[in-house]
Amino acid sequence: MRKIRVTVFCEHNQDKYEPVKSVYPDGMHTAIAEAFEDSEFEVTIATQDMPLHGLSDEVLNNTDVLFWWSHIDNNLLDDGVANAVCKRVVQDGMGFVALHSATFSKPWQRLLGIEFEAGEWGRFRTMPKGEKERLWVIAPGHPICQGITDCIEIPKDEMYGEPMIIPDPDKLLFIAWWEGGDVCRSGVLYDRGRGKVFGFTPGHETFPIYYQEEIRKVLRNAARFMAPDPQMIIQSGEGHLSGDPRENLTHCM
Amino acid sequence: MRKIRVTVFCEHNQDKYEPVKSVYPDGMHTAIAEAFEDSEFEVTIATQDMPLHGLSDEVLNNTDVLFWWSHIDNNLLDDGVANAVCKRVVQDGMGFVALHSATFSKPWQRLLGIEFEAGEWGRFRTMPKGEKERLWVIAPGHPICQGITDCIEIPKDEMYGEPMIIPDPDKLLFIAWWEGGDVCRSGVLYDRGRGKVFGFTPGHETFPIYYQEEIRKVLRNAARFMAPDPQMIIQSGEGHLSGDPRENLTHCM
Amino acid sequence: MRKIRVTVFCEHNQDKYEPVKSVYPDGMHTAIAEAFEDSEFEVTIATQDMPLHGLSDEVLNNTDVLFWWSHIDNNLLDDGVANAVCKRVVQDGMGFVALHSATFSKPWQRLLGIEFEAGEWGRFRTMPKGEKERLWVIAPGHPICQGITDCIEIPKDEMYGEPMIIPDPDKLLFIAWWEGGDVCRSGVLYDRGRGKVFGFTPGHETFPIYYQEEIRKVLRNAARFMAPDPQMIIQSGEGHLSGDPRENLTHCM
Amino acid sequence: MRKIRVTVFCEHNQDKYEPVKSVYPDGMHTAIAEAFEDSEFEVTIATQDMPLHGLSDEVLNNTDVLFWWSHIDNNLLDDGVANAVCKRVVQDGMGFVALHSATFSKPWQRLLGIEFEAGEWGRFRTMPKGEKERLWVIAPGHPICQGITDCIEIPKDEMYGEPMIIPDPDKLLFIAWWEGGDVCRSGVLYDRGRGKVFGFTPGHETFPIYYQEEIRKVLRNAARFMAPDPQMIIQSGEGHLSGDPRENLTHCM
Repeated sequence: MRKIRVTVFCEHNQDKYEPVKSVYPDGMHTAIAEAFEDSEFEVTIATQDMPLHGLSDEVLNNTDVLFWWSHIDNNLLDDGVANAVCKRVVQDGMGFVALHSATFSKPWQRLLGIEFEAGEWGRFRTMPKGEKERLWVIAPGHPICQGITDCIEIPKDEMYGEPMIIPDPDKLLFIAWWEGGDVCRSGVLYDRGRGKVFGFTPGHETFPIYYQEEIRKVLRNAARFMAPDPQMIIQSGEGHLSGDPRENLTHCM
Repeated sequence: MRKIRVTVFCEHNQDKYEPVKSVYPDGMHTAIAEAFEDSEFEVTIATQDMPLHGLSDEVLNNTDVLFWWSHIDNNLLDDGVANAVCKRVVQDGMGFVALHSATFSKPWQRLLGIEFEAGEWGRFRTMPKGEKERLWVIAPGHPICQGITDCIEIPKDEMYGEPMIIPDPDKLLFIAWWEGGDVCRSGVLYDRGRGKVFGFTPGHETFPIYYQEEIRKVLRNAARFMAPDPQMIIQSGEGHLSGDPRENLTHCM
Repeated sequence: MRKIRVTVFCEHNQDKYEPVKSVYPDGMHTAIAEAFEDSEFEVTIATQDMPLHGLSDEVLNNTDVLFWWSHIDNNLLDDGVANAVCKRVVQDGMGFVALHSATFSKPWQRLLGIEFEAGEWGRFRTMPKGEKERLWVIAPGHPICQGITDCIEIPKDEMYGEPMIIPDPDKLLFIAWWEGGDVCRSGVLYDRGRGKVFGFTPGHETFPIYYQEEIRKVLRNAARFMAPDPQMIIQSGEGHLSGDPRENLTHCM
Repeated sequence: MRKIRVTVFCEHNQDKYEPVKSVYPDGMHTAIAEAFEDSEFEVTIATQDMPLHGLSDEVLNNTDVLFWWSHIDNNLLDDGVANAVCKRVVQDGMGFVALHSATFSKPWQRLLGIEFEAGEWGRFRTMPKGEKERLWVIAPGHPICQGITDCIEIPKDEMYGEPMIIPDPDKLLFIAWWEGGDVCRSGVLYDRGRGKVFGFTPGHETFPIYYQEEIRKVLRNAARFMAPDPQMIIQSGEGHLSGDPRENLTHCM
């Protein structure tokens, strides 16, 4: 059976220095990629310091689902690369997963149709100590929630809170509860053209969240659910090139 | 200008006895009805102990929005009355608001297309002391949220928690945060036929929640937003009686 | 691999007489069941004239997806059976597919939260000759649309037209175009509790629509997509019985 | 009462020449603006040949709803202006209405999160003669459909057909039926940040569609429904600047 081709993109900046380095000594991408250490997946790593940020057309054309973690260098991302990612999602059906502060990344905000300053977008609260979070399952039995019983408890994370200014998700999968008194929609799924996009908020760089088995299970479930259906791409391609009523009839006979 | 005709239905059972009586000495319906003491509204009271539960066709035909609080007598509600309420919503556009444990009432569950035992439906937790709740606004600027800044804090309420088995709302307006570690979708809006239905979870009988000004503001906002548009009813009636292609053409010329 | 257990319910009244008999000599259920003649499926037949309409608890408990065709006897369906079907969908995750005039059946209307007379619900037009219909794919690549290129052309069917009074679907899959000048949402998907429900409008009894290969492909796709995930059922069952905060913590540790 | 401030943007290129000139001798924007000749509205005109395309910050800051018609010069639109329009919608709540081929305009595609070549996006068919179209109302009684009975018939328009690659609308208001055998979602409504956006497909430049009274009624309804609620803007602004838990508490006491 064909493997699911996962690419993990990481800004790979803060994780070169303390305090993040001691949490993710080999980079955050390594911990995220470990979630896919299974014969079912084939993983490629891309970091912002590589040429084209590691996201050449060849890499994108061979990616089924792109997982994206970024933060302080969001604005330095090349516009051409951001647009190539969006185009690959919308036109070819690649899946895109925005992790934590990738909610401020160019590809995610362009795919959602919103562009914000952090301060404009919602409520957040960073305390060096972090605070306890619970991700409650809102859609039991959705493929992305498979094997998660009711909720995932995360000992410490950075708080993201409502009201958040995002489009209403096509499907809301997780809501986060925060020790400090806030909530947020933390697992939001959208269709974008031929592709699916998923925002998953947990994962502040100073906490070992991507080592947590339940979080890794959600990432694997997302890869399985969001990998494009090859049949779809061919069929849409066909359909969408036909502007001629006679050919149009051909499609329907 | 025509007044908005609000009917407040209340089970009116527990509030006849302690400990509820001392919180709502004149019945919960009285406290809920006080939210509408404004020249903009016209209020009718209905209680389950009245003939036809106070919901004769004449009352329903003169109701724009029906607010419903019920609990331990949900199963004793007459099926004919429950169905008359649903029919009035779906076919005539009356608004229906399910308050707190009315989530287990016959009209609400029939309008949503789900019927459950309490234990089947979601997680709940009653402690005599109750626990702190915060209703976060998810849709700033939606008419029902107007005038609410970010969240409403409720000192004590009964916890309702996810995963809740309800249809995905057409619009999610509020999410509740609970001191005890849970969350729930606490303001859920749906279209049902020609009518709108809204579930609003706060309001356990042992706490003075319906005296809280922000809660009353949400109830007034809901009445304004959910009152049917007379034009809609006429136009749909017309349209929907025409099964004949010639008449059908008449509609479109 | 476990087979997908499909049950085909048919009113089996008009198909006993002309003009339907000559189109479906062995009953409509036989033609619908033939769509599942594949080692992947296991098919049970139920007709309204059987005891309990052929839908005993034992049959329902061994059904993954129930396909339902009914028309003139919709009102004669036993209420207890209708409610048992709804309960099995909402609480156990059985899939339910309403075919053509099953849009007026008790289970479908109760699952949607609307109850209507035909004349109330939308526009329709029956002409002995029928009219040409095209089902356009709105969600290319959705599992239920797999293998359908752009649209399915049906030489003759009974027209169902908008405005139709149904809840907004969680996902709109097909829109029908009608020779006579109408359109309708003809493939509508909803989540209901733990189950999925799908309305698929083509299939008037006087036309050989259920012999058409593309229609059968949609039925097979629906069975595959809507069969419940056993994992979901167990997990929700667990989660939903826990009203106790300590047990609640157990779920999250 | 404060007037609704409408700005009508028009590419104003093809309408300078035949065959469009004789249909819209004063430019398409003039015909569109005439829809708002009512004391309820205040109209500003912007055309692509003006400095900043007529859309300076001062104009945008004084616009409640921006109506947009564009076609062959979509790609020549200044990126800064396109982004200023999107920012004003998402952050300040300005309404945006994409008319006909504005479905390929930069602001619309950026607000939806999709960017396409025409040929990639869906099926279309231009015949000098055009073809008959019917816009069926899918949401009777939605404010944007007010006063439209079942459908609007347009004698000739350019066909836009499904499958169209757009995000599922938050609310589907109109579906178009086409003489040539196609359908399309022709009235699609989305929330984007603090603003609403609406796509309305009719309006090919060679046909006098913007003189049709029912079309003008839809445009007026859209302006009324989509004008931002000043209260929302203030309240969100407040809420979204508070990242501090103590201030956060202030909001909730």
